[in-house]
Amino acid sequence: MRVYLAGPDVFLPDPVARGVALKAICARHGLTGVFPLDVPAVQPASWAGLPEWRRIALCNEAHIRACDALIANLTPFRGPSADVGTVFELGFMRALGRPVFGWSATAEPFADRTRRLYPTHRDGSVWRDAEELTVESFGCNDNLMIDGAVLASGGTLEVDDLPPERRWTDLGLFERCVVRAAAVLATRGGEGDISVSDVHIAEEGP
Amino acid sequence: MRVYLAGPDVFLPDPVARGVALKAICARHGLTGVFPLDVPAVQPASWAGLPEWRRIALCNEAHIRACDALIANLTPFRGPSADVGTVFELGFMRALGRPVFGWSATAEPFADRTRRLYPTHRDGSVWRDAEELTVESFGCNDNLMIDGAVLASGGTLEVDDLPPERRWTDLGLFERCVVRAAAVLATRGGEGDISVSDVHIAEEGP
Repeated sequence: MRVYLAGPDVFLPDPVARGVALKAICARHGLTGVFPLDVPAVQPASWAGLPEWRRIALCNEAHIRACDALIANLTPFRGPSADVGTVFELGFMRALGRPVFGWSATAEPFADRTRRLYPTHRDGSVWRDAEELTVESFGCNDNLMIDGAVLASGGTLEVDDLPPERRWTDLGLFERCVVRAAAVLATRGGEGDISVSDVHIAEEGP
Repeated sequence: MRVYLAGPDVFLPDPVARGVALKAICARHGLTGVFPLDVPAVQPASWAGLPEWRRIALCNEAHIRACDALIANLTPFRGPSADVGTVFELGFMRALGRPVFGWSATAEPFADRTRRLYPTHRDGSVWRDAEELTVESFGCNDNLMIDGAVLASGGTLEVDDLPPERRWTDLGLFERCVVRAAAVLATRGGEGDISVSDVHIAEEGP
């Protein structure tokens, strides 16, 4: 089973070593980790003329399509939420109907993190920021689309409070997530989401 | 043509009025806007027992599947990047192979925004934050997965510098994006991405 390893780990000082470490943990539990920096053996010829950043984006999309599941490092990244590149990839895999898993080095709820980082005030039953935008407060780990996708896909979310100096180095939480993912994938055979991907709601007319 | 209107607009003080305004602009240009708060006529019975936030997440996923394209409000939201819920949805639609469009009320490049909001230092050819994580610096509007998806899908990105007090109220930029989307969809017939969705790269063996 191939698992795409989404996360801001690519921004660490030694991302290659990080990828090797993540993959070693995957291998220990019978999974093949695919890291965003992995270079595919063959790329479409049409990509050759594109700038590096576009090739990276296309390559990551192709990696995700070629994996059975995704594990996302959802540790808050420069703000109250996870890295947007990681979240893009999680949404991408969710649309493919395969299991998505997440882990985060903070257990503080999303709403509390937001209110700690941004000035907010109460307006009736909701909290608003300085621009009067509501603070989403459903007790989730991050935006409800993220938590919702993980649950609906059959994945799991592993959260714990790591001390700040260990949040980009400690991989115990990641390994817990890999163990859970391996168990889920062994049962489901990587068949992907069974509850949502084929659901079509009846929309109102135009 | 149905277009899903992703964005932190749902957090505005009067999100229903905002949805009405966005849809009116879409209608003016021949498109049917679908707003995240729209309640589908029929929902799967299995959703009934779920908490509200899970039903919202499933409903938005179903809305996206039922649309021909997506327009995302990528205006930076509580940090240097777009709202993660919006980015999740953009990734979701991108995986479905349909065009994704974006607009943002700031023209300041992503790397500059990040460096303005977070202390950074130079390390050789890259900039790093206080935790030594690299600042992505490809001249993009946001994380490269976002810009890359918009371009690869055949969509467009409309950016402009609106004054802070108008960035959540002025819809001129949104309308420009709708005009571009309508033109693209009229040509392509909403057939979705032609350059990437069927590409399979050759991965290295396990």
